[in-house]
Amino acid sequence: VAGRPLANLQQVGYAGAIYPINPQREEIAGLRAYPSLDALPETPDLALIVLPQTAVLAAVEGCAEAGVRAAIVISAGFAEAGPEGVRAQQRMGEVARASGMIVCGPNSLGLLNYVDRVPLSFTTAGDMLRGPAGRIGFVSQSGGLMTTIANRAWDAGIGVSRAVATGNEADLTVAEVLEYLANDPATDACVLLLEAVRDGPRFLAACDRLLERGKPLVAYKIGRSAAGAAAAATHTGALAGSYAALQAVFRQRGVIEAQDPEDLFDLAAAAAAGRFPTGPGVAITTSSGGAGAIAADQAEECGLHVVPFGAATVGRLQELVPSYGSGAVVNPFDLGVAIGDAAIESQAAAAVLDDSAVDALVLCTPGVGEPGRESATYLAELAGTTPKPLFPVILGGSHSAAAREVLRQARVPVFASPRKAVLALDGLRRFARARAAQAGAPAPNVAPLEARVRRLLEAVGPRPTEYDAKRFLAQVGVLVVEEYVAQSADESVRCAELVGYPVALKVLSPDIAHKTEVGGVRLGLADAAAVRAAYDEMLAQVRAAAPRAEIQGALVAGLLPTPLELIAGIHTDPTFGPLVLFGVGGIWVEAVRDVAMRPAPLRADDSAEMLAELRGAWLLQGARGLPPVAPEAVERLLRSLSDLAVASAGRLTGVDVNPLVPTADGELVALDAALYLAESGGQ
Amino acid sequence: VAGRPLANLQQVGYAGAIYPINPQREEIAGLRAYPSLDALPETPDLALIVLPQTAVLAAVEGCAEAGVRAAIVISAGFAEAGPEGVRAQQRMGEVARASGMIVCGPNSLGLLNYVDRVPLSFTTAGDMLRGPAGRIGFVSQSGGLMTTIANRAWDAGIGVSRAVATGNEADLTVAEVLEYLANDPATDACVLLLEAVRDGPRFLAACDRLLERGKPLVAYKIGRSAAGAAAAATHTGALAGSYAALQAVFRQRGVIEAQDPEDLFDLAAAAAAGRFPTGPGVAITTSSGGAGAIAADQAEECGLHVVPFGAATVGRLQELVPSYGSGAVVNPFDLGVAIGDAAIESQAAAAVLDDSAVDALVLCTPGVGEPGRESATYLAELAGTTPKPLFPVILGGSHSAAAREVLRQARVPVFASPRKAVLALDGLRRFARARAAQAGAPAPNVAPLEARVRRLLEAVGPRPTEYDAKRFLAQVGVLVVEEYVAQSADESVRCAELVGYPVALKVLSPDIAHKTEVGGVRLGLADAAAVRAAYDEMLAQVRAAAPRAEIQGALVAGLLPTPLELIAGIHTDPTFGPLVLFGVGGIWVEAVRDVAMRPAPLRADDSAEMLAELRGAWLLQGARGLPPVAPEAVERLLRSLSDLAVASAGRLTGVDVNPLVPTADGELVALDAALYLAESGGQ
Repeated sequence: VAGRPLANLQQVGYAGAIYPINPQREEIAGLRAYPSLDALPETPDLALIVLPQTAVLAAVEGCAEAGVRAAIVISAGFAEAGPEGVRAQQRMGEVARASGMIVCGPNSLGLLNYVDRVPLSFTTAGDMLRGPAGRIGFVSQSGGLMTTIANRAWDAGIGVSRAVATGNEADLTVAEVLEYLANDPATDACVLLLEAVRDGPRFLAACDRLLERGKPLVAYKIGRSAAGAAAAATHTGALAGSYAALQAVFRQRGVIEAQDPEDLFDLAAAAAAGRFPTGPGVAITTSSGGAGAIAADQAEECGLHVVPFGAATVGRLQELVPSYGSGAVVNPFDLGVAIGDAAIESQAAAAVLDDSAVDALVLCTPGVGEPGRESATYLAELAGTTPKPLFPVILGGSHSAAAREVLRQARVPVFASPRKAVLALDGLRRFARARAAQAGAPAPNVAPLEARVRRLLEAVGPRPTEYDAKRFLAQVGVLVVEEYVAQSADESVRCAELVGYPVALKVLSPDIAHKTEVGGVRLGLADAAAVRAAYDEMLAQVRAAAPRAEIQGALVAGLLPTPLELIAGIHTDPTFGPLVLFGVGGIWVEAVRDVAMRPAPLRADDSAEMLAELRGAWLLQGARGLPPVAPEAVERLLRSLSDLAVASAGRLTGVDVNPLVPTADGELVALDAALYLAESGGQ
Repeated sequence: VAGRPLANLQQVGYAGAIYPINPQREEIAGLRAYPSLDALPETPDLALIVLPQTAVLAAVEGCAEAGVRAAIVISAGFAEAGPEGVRAQQRMGEVARASGMIVCGPNSLGLLNYVDRVPLSFTTAGDMLRGPAGRIGFVSQSGGLMTTIANRAWDAGIGVSRAVATGNEADLTVAEVLEYLANDPATDACVLLLEAVRDGPRFLAACDRLLERGKPLVAYKIGRSAAGAAAAATHTGALAGSYAALQAVFRQRGVIEAQDPEDLFDLAAAAAAGRFPTGPGVAITTSSGGAGAIAADQAEECGLHVVPFGAATVGRLQELVPSYGSGAVVNPFDLGVAIGDAAIESQAAAAVLDDSAVDALVLCTPGVGEPGRESATYLAELAGTTPKPLFPVILGGSHSAAAREVLRQARVPVFASPRKAVLALDGLRRFARARAAQAGAPAPNVAPLEARVRRLLEAVGPRPTEYDAKRFLAQVGVLVVEEYVAQSADESVRCAELVGYPVALKVLSPDIAHKTEVGGVRLGLADAAAVRAAYDEMLAQVRAAAPRAEIQGALVAGLLPTPLELIAGIHTDPTFGPLVLFGVGGIWVEAVRDVAMRPAPLRADDSAEMLAELRGAWLLQGARGLPPVAPEAVERLLRSLSDLAVASAGRLTGVDVNPLVPTADGELVALDAALYLAESGGQ
């Protein structure tokens, strides 16, 4: 391993000075070797550290003292190797931050700068000599996969600009590398192979920077399951955060998630072409009915629309393939008898791209042999003249190599499967939408709310009850059920008369989280006698079951019908901070896990997207005799929670509104709620 | 197109007689041409028909009359082209069936017999000359995709034995080709690219034959969505059946479903290796922690177990990599410092394969260069000595070509991604399980039940009410709620006293399907007075709302708590016949679509598998204070429905039990039910 980085630099003809340091040698690979850093004729820009673990920390410290600007630590045996390694790695991070020297690693494969042909890694650097650099930046926490995935990208004719393996991230994180790539003129799109985000806010900022610059990020997360996360942790010492929270971040920030690391570079190549669909309308033209149907299947599954063509388009297509009756001119458009006619194929493509309902085109063609090459030549020309994405799917294998090459030369993304072309289109549409939402959403000014939330939380005190939680939420814009506190049987009857029969009684205590379990709930009390009797009886039962609980009386609440129980709230993720959540509630929360989340503050469309994400979304549209919920009511509620999350940051770690029920007039009302305060140890 | 089949036959040096028929030519491609079929010196074995659409039917008829055994109709313009084409195609099918001549097509790409080097197709036949035939049979309803997918399989070093494009299937169906391949000694596994199954029973039989012969079938279904199905229908004229029913068939019969047509041959190559996991225990060894974690993620998602290694295995692994403490020897096993040592890698693989908890091994290795080739050589040898699947994932691209080639030569399946290796393993495990279930499940003897069901259905009459449905189901082993029919207010009180208060009243009428909508339901009636008052009041309201409905009285039923509503039943699929279904009921049926189905008769494990398939399965295990449901109760209920489905075939087209609720003692009771009789127009 120690000799490979040097061999790599020599193989690519690196022109700068290289100073091997090794006290045992006079000469290494034809270069003069030096006994120590001090002995060098100048301070190097960068140190590549490939030493036994025990010697690494001293070397890093030496570099920092000498004013070296950056170090790459290839050596392993740190956080992934146990408590001692964790300590050494922490120290390495401290040295970096104190001196300002950037440290990449430890346990890093290094970096490959294809733009300037600088390999700083022990992996093979042969791909650097394959041709000019590509336009895709690659950040990976897994060294082993970085090199093999980059090799496959080059095989597929998709080049890399810069690849960085951040390893254990004692100092340099993926977020910082992404920030760099966002500003890098040699990079058009990025690929991220992620195990764990260590610096949530900076990661969010890097995603935003990429959005601003119009550079899509394509990501794959390793360690989604418990078994996978444990496996990932053992080799870089990183603990995976919640995958659901990460996906919420991806969705809001338009990060395109690959289903397999294999697919990362195909998606990135499509992204790097720089054409993004501005709407969901997809046209499909195809030489194979089966391929067209597969594309249509995937489009429908993604929520894209296989739109009907306009009359003008139908006319043009019919002119191209006159044997079709106009009835046969549909989307997907099957070339049928015109198969293999490259001119007709590209004219049909031009016709559908001119259709205003069409935002993108997936074109399936065999691409075989010389006719395939000719077809690719037409398509490459057409792609250069349209602002809409044109994604050719070349169905053939080795027989279609020439067609593929023509398109690659023209920087038109090429797909091997209709399904993947559509997935890429869907990813880019999400990116474009996230970009628009970012541009349209100035950070909310929560300063006034912040002051009010501080006061309100002080009033609530350190142990908020259910009643406190709902009073508090009512003050920040959340609708809550009508209810009153009674401290005697007589008072409970007066309260019941205020809200109207039938009512529910619930014990009120800061110490009791599960009221039903201690007999602290009575439902359907129909008159004064029932309420009066229930009050004393309930409190006696609760006192017997929970003798040490502080009991403040009982809540008397109106009884709303609960045909549909929803949930909403704020959850603080340890990495990414507050997230707003919304979904199906009650017993079904856990059964079907039908909950959508987004980081606070929400952006334009976030609430609509969250709603669309729920499998049970149609239940809110008035199905099955349920009261329909106004989308505006969802939007208002989630906006209130989002503002609250931002304004209460550091004070409130969680809010649960469960159940939340729809009312007859389309609003959403909280029947029960809980607050989790930072001081009380969190959620 | 017309000349290509001939050119193909000549290109591969076909040794048999070829007789071009064309009245306008004396000679074609160096062969003597004949004016008509009658003019040939002998009756050919097979006729390849490449004529204008209008001339096809006469040619097919002529072949049948002359005693030709088989015809392939390349020409299009039949069912896919409109009503006239449909009629011509029907006639073609009749000719075939009357004469016994097999007709493949119309609108077929033809067939490629790689075993005997006989190309009968207008597609390119070049792959036939690439080397010996492969061991995978390929049936496709899409001609365009058949040729390009086969080309890619050859590129990947995975050969085909025989490929058949069945086109519009006037006569020869995919089921018949699969039956042939099941018996074909040159074929070890099959690939199916399916648009629509035309002959359900024969398809089921073909799947069974493949199971018996131990040949896995890997399938991709085109036209899953409405848009995709419409697209598929326009080009072969086939209407897609229900995708959910097809998936139920796939699951019961162990058919491995590919997520993308691209993946078909990788899966089939794994299947053709002939080693199937006998349990869910997976071992992962890896040179890259990231790759190991990805494999573990996918295994967990599939329900495979990344099992802990036994003490003996841990000891052997620790001996191999002594620098690890025993704590670091876990599954996935990361080679760590031993990366690149082919001997240690294969010894570690041998050690974990010896572990009795391990049913299969996924081994991730870079495979780069000469060390990669060496590693592949070791692994190929090891794979030959173990009955357990050993699936190497070669992480590198072109740098790993030599390693890949060594494994291919040894017929060890090679994967490009850890995720796909695990998906293949999961598919083969399901195949092995379906095979065991087939072997263990003799067809139930339903003859006695058949006679009883006939009598019971006669008694029920042509318009069964809810009451009739439950009485009937009670006679065939389904538990139903206690209820009685009342025909007056007095009688309703007597019934209520039998079942015990509180009770529910429901109007009883064969004409009213939605009782609530006409005011025909009263719940929670607590005493005689309430029941008496409700009876007359309810019937008056129903008569006003549905004046023409025949009203037979009211059902008086005990009021069971319904914390969890389930659904069970029988649904008759037009292609595959009766399916048994089970899932989450009530309003949630449609919201979350959490329903599992299997064709009747159920096989061993089907009910357990159906239960496992439900997202809400854990709700039946006693979660959240719900009564736990005994798996035996589910098994008993589904078995009863399965027997009923078989015994009532042709009489009963559907049974809905909804809601079905769990009782305190772990049983499942039908609260409501409906029967759909064949005579009444079905479900």
